[in-house]
Amino acid sequence: MTLGERQGDEKNDSKYCGVETEFNDDMPQLLSLNIHGGFDFVVAPLMDPTYRPSLLVSSNGGSGVLPFAGSDLVLSPSQWSSHVVGKISSWLDLDSEDEMLRRDSEITLKQEIAWASHLSLQACLLPAPKGVTCANYARCVNQILQNLSNMQLWLRVPLEKSDDDDGNRSPNSMGEEHRDSWEMWNSFRTLGEHHSQLSVALDVLSSLPSVNSLARWFGEPVRAAIINSNSFLTNARGYPCLSKRHQNLLTECFNHSIQIVISGQQMQNFPTGTSVSNSHNSNNQSEGVEGMQRHPLRSYLDYIAYLYQKMDPLPEQERFELGYRDYLQSPLQPLMDNLEAQTYETFEKDTTKYIQYQRAVAKALVDRVPDEKASTITTVLMVVGAGRGPLVRASLQAAEETGRKLKVYAVEKNPNAIVTLHSLLKIEGWEKLVTIVSSDMRCWDAPEKADILVSELLGSFGDNELSPECLDGAQRFLKEDGISIPSSYTSFFQPVTASKLYNDIKSHKDLVHFETAYVVKFHRVARLTSPQPVFTFNHPEDSTRKSNHRYTKLRFEIPTDTGSALVHGFAGYFDSVLYKDVHLGIEPSTATPNMFSWFPIFFPLRTPMCVQPGIPLEVHIWRCCGTSKVWYEWGVTSPSSSPIHNCNGRSYWVGL
Amino acid sequence: MTLGERQGDEKNDSKYCGVETEFNDDMPQLLSLNIHGGFDFVVAPLMDPTYRPSLLVSSNGGSGVLPFAGSDLVLSPSQWSSHVVGKISSWLDLDSEDEMLRRDSEITLKQEIAWASHLSLQACLLPAPKGVTCANYARCVNQILQNLSNMQLWLRVPLEKSDDDDGNRSPNSMGEEHRDSWEMWNSFRTLGEHHSQLSVALDVLSSLPSVNSLARWFGEPVRAAIINSNSFLTNARGYPCLSKRHQNLLTECFNHSIQIVISGQQMQNFPTGTSVSNSHNSNNQSEGVEGMQRHPLRSYLDYIAYLYQKMDPLPEQERFELGYRDYLQSPLQPLMDNLEAQTYETFEKDTTKYIQYQRAVAKALVDRVPDEKASTITTVLMVVGAGRGPLVRASLQAAEETGRKLKVYAVEKNPNAIVTLHSLLKIEGWEKLVTIVSSDMRCWDAPEKADILVSELLGSFGDNELSPECLDGAQRFLKEDGISIPSSYTSFFQPVTASKLYNDIKSHKDLVHFETAYVVKFHRVARLTSPQPVFTFNHPEDSTRKSNHRYTKLRFEIPTDTGSALVHGFAGYFDSVLYKDVHLGIEPSTATPNMFSWFPIFFPLRTPMCVQPGIPLEVHIWRCCGTSKVWYEWGVTSPSSSPIHNCNGRSYWVGL
Repeated sequence: MTLGERQGDEKNDSKYCGVETEFNDDMPQLLSLNIHGGFDFVVAPLMDPTYRPSLLVSSNGGSGVLPFAGSDLVLSPSQWSSHVVGKISSWLDLDSEDEMLRRDSEITLKQEIAWASHLSLQACLLPAPKGVTCANYARCVNQILQNLSNMQLWLRVPLEKSDDDDGNRSPNSMGEEHRDSWEMWNSFRTLGEHHSQLSVALDVLSSLPSVNSLARWFGEPVRAAIINSNSFLTNARGYPCLSKRHQNLLTECFNHSIQIVISGQQMQNFPTGTSVSNSHNSNNQSEGVEGMQRHPLRSYLDYIAYLYQKMDPLPEQERFELGYRDYLQSPLQPLMDNLEAQTYETFEKDTTKYIQYQRAVAKALVDRVPDEKASTITTVLMVVGAGRGPLVRASLQAAEETGRKLKVYAVEKNPNAIVTLHSLLKIEGWEKLVTIVSSDMRCWDAPEKADILVSELLGSFGDNELSPECLDGAQRFLKEDGISIPSSYTSFFQPVTASKLYNDIKSHKDLVHFETAYVVKFHRVARLTSPQPVFTFNHPEDSTRKSNHRYTKLRFEIPTDTGSALVHGFAGYFDSVLYKDVHLGIEPSTATPNMFSWFPIFFPLRTPMCVQPGIPLEVHIWRCCGTSKVWYEWGVTSPSSSPIHNCNGRSYWVGL
Repeated sequence: MTLGERQGDEKNDSKYCGVETEFNDDMPQLLSLNIHGGFDFVVAPLMDPTYRPSLLVSSNGGSGVLPFAGSDLVLSPSQWSSHVVGKISSWLDLDSEDEMLRRDSEITLKQEIAWASHLSLQACLLPAPKGVTCANYARCVNQILQNLSNMQLWLRVPLEKSDDDDGNRSPNSMGEEHRDSWEMWNSFRTLGEHHSQLSVALDVLSSLPSVNSLARWFGEPVRAAIINSNSFLTNARGYPCLSKRHQNLLTECFNHSIQIVISGQQMQNFPTGTSVSNSHNSNNQSEGVEGMQRHPLRSYLDYIAYLYQKMDPLPEQERFELGYRDYLQSPLQPLMDNLEAQTYETFEKDTTKYIQYQRAVAKALVDRVPDEKASTITTVLMVVGAGRGPLVRASLQAAEETGRKLKVYAVEKNPNAIVTLHSLLKIEGWEKLVTIVSSDMRCWDAPEKADILVSELLGSFGDNELSPECLDGAQRFLKEDGISIPSSYTSFFQPVTASKLYNDIKSHKDLVHFETAYVVKFHRVARLTSPQPVFTFNHPEDSTRKSNHRYTKLRFEIPTDTGSALVHGFAGYFDSVLYKDVHLGIEPSTATPNMFSWFPIFFPLRTPMCVQPGIPLEVHIWRCCGTSKVWYEWGVTSPSSSPIHNCNGRSYWVGL
């Protein structure tokens, strides 16, 4: 059974809900009880919790039979792997001062994981580190991970952080007292080199840290949220429910494919014979097999299912983009390469974008030609980078809408798109209105000057597809008082936690991939501050400024109630002023709605940087221009210095 | 001319002394004046200091002739490269808020370095960063370094650090105010990825930071120390001299091949016709060419030469080890590999070591056999790992010295050494005293048990050549109350700055070399704290403890007056108790004098860690034992976490 179905979200793991159990020798019975009770999987101890290797040696003289919960034969291989998460013994303390306990813990950890691996379990839950240090625990897990097949290890981390004195905590609190469990996690995974099979199971407690502090976790590899029955409240009708903040947290978990696990005991007797879920929905077939006792945690499960089902369905655009989530793409190089028909096809469908262009052109036409001269003056409009004609169409529609007379030049360097343009003219009957020019705008010898220059050369980071260089080249044939649409654009930077992206880049095992910017639909990402503007370009540019070289230094302050956070890199966006108040962009706070042409861009850091509360994050970005290419360099100087990334554009550049 | 000659130290660059000059169009005259004035090289501006690219464009319309100090033809290629260090224009400010100045600075920097490179200069002196940030400067230098031939770039760094509030400075002072120029340097070179052609020219000022603060620099790539004439005092006879602390600093510079450059003006008139150097030494031939004026800075030079010449000559052992300084060697694997004759030859010459062994055996014999039984009791002594016999000899000499009767077994696994042993017995007439056993001590079936077990299986880190495993194997044939020589040994760890070693390791461009420990004669290394003990092994071992696995956590506190420092890794040492008060070791505070068998060992960090004042450095070290190998793992958890190095011994291990 699952928590429910959600349209377009069929692959979301979070529809499966698990339950944490006690050790039980009879694994088939344990599983049957819980599956029939409505859960999808159990998080069950694999080893008798009284086992200690040091006692075993002296007691049985080494018969070698370890006290596991049943042999591998008691369940089918698919039962083991689909329905059982191995819960590693919770007594383990690998950083104990007691050497005997430490060594027993090491041996047992290795034995249990080896057993789980033998059973082909998909995951094991590692107990939370006991003390303030976890170096030996991290080392053992790291050793194990080097030779582990596909199994995930979920490190249990209590979701706790004391907020009372974030501002003035000393930076060496690490090792002194762990008030922020994120720091323990960060140390653990850093010691383990960010291994991709090491993830987090958050223990959700009855009180929650601040919203900012919670938000960090959604950039981390959290696979499960374990919620104890004692974190539930009781509603007026006597059923379990959760506080509003807990509900929001669970919704975020569902949205991030984080599986819920219910743990603990039934806290009180709930009204019998019915369940809270009945009052909310009719998902009734799961009432349990006849004759079997109702699962003691069933009311909690029903409530979780209720929360799952009452979520809003995914918007259509989100559903369409599901497959792109957190998938790294190299940015287009439309100047150096010619776009393919498929690419034109996709982008031309973005009606929102062309509506904005039409509005901008319309406003420019009205500003340029007063009503009384509408019938006498013909405005010369050049679409530079016309592609297969969508901006030509938007411009002609703007002319019609405003009753202005228009003469259009459609300049396009891609000879394949020129074919389509010619055919478009015939079909639409635009032959007298539009002149097609097959040329690179940077070298076209225009027969007259334009009143309005229209282009769509922007990349996710604004200037990263070389709009400035192209428009500088086209400015020769714009009248002195002419208008460029867009008239300006600005790029933005925002520090993010993005461990999934970091691991994908790391998997290439080279420097080049860490010095490349990627177009990516962010999903499992934590945005740590508001974005800040980076570079702005204006068109037409007054001629005194010759260079498109840029340098900007930004200083980000992460809210102190966030706690420490790991910065894997920077999300990049743009916003563009098409004309006056008509803008277009993807900067989150002002993003144009329902536009899908651009995903954000991601600038990674070779070494993720941990930023502690109250300490600014200072980053430097350069836009460098050579004779045949343009590239970015970037680096951090606070809290500590990183290397400068992409020196001389050695890894990533855009060809002129 | 040079400052002088020092026996055994002929390759020391610091015998050459330079002088910083003003811009002079007439380079041949400038050079001649200074060379004849007694200096070995000039640090001279290459470009007219009034030049600004932005002015040039408007004034001469781009004739393209840059105002360099003479063409390349005015000096011979060897004059340029041997006698001229290019001084980059000091007006450059690449991090100015003034964009025009910033761009002028970038252009000029690139032009001057390109010119210096064209002249094949060995080095250029870069001006000190002007402000609190240096990111753009660092980026430009980084870009230049990527395509630079062999030239060194010396970044000028004022040797200054305010000491008043080290303890409680906030960690984000970086970027706020630079009270410690080391932090600026550290940021600069980190941004530049520790490029090996980027080094430091320290500007020595009239007041000096604390001794600890100065000491950090000797682990950094300092190539030159520039001392201004206004840092000199005047002695009773009216000549320039330096404070005691300045003298000590200069001596350290000489010892670390750091070249001195004198700068500034003659501060006063010194007594004419003679010079301070005459009163100290007779190095008189350098009085200058007849008819030429005496160089205004000559008295300062003479004083520097005097300091150079009054240094103690290098001890013989230091001279012998000169070629090994900062040279990384892989540790021996004497258990897995058989040593070669040459290796035996070298180590057998270490008489100090064998004298200590002889003392230890003598004491053990006396303890074991009272004087009155000396003639009746025969002590059974086994040398395990006898090699070519030096410990056999030392043991027999101890027996003779104490009048005890000895029966010796010489156990050796290397069949080649067995040949030598047999021949030694014949030559020395020891056939009746010594039994040769050609066997690995771990599997030898001894005919009787030993009173005393003597071995020399120690590596630079004590247990790193598997002495514990070998002696565990040999303990079977030691009597219950028998004595092991050594009876215990302890390894030590000490954090160091060692940029030269770091760069050598980095040059391999792989992970393996960063996860390997190296035997190395430290020289350009800064030891940041006292060493702390790591692992101790005792022999014979009481049998309850079965494993030679070890785990230790150390916490180092760098003295706060040091300031921040970069930790490139850890120096490792050992000390060994041979018997009672007879010890042997290389831990610096207790090192056995005149012993040359062991250099220290170096455990690197993949990413050097910057440690700020008041924040402890916490490191964890494991000794791990597998079925066929033993290895170390290590990692740092404070100030921040590093990865665990050498997981599962993947990069570095010792074969059993």
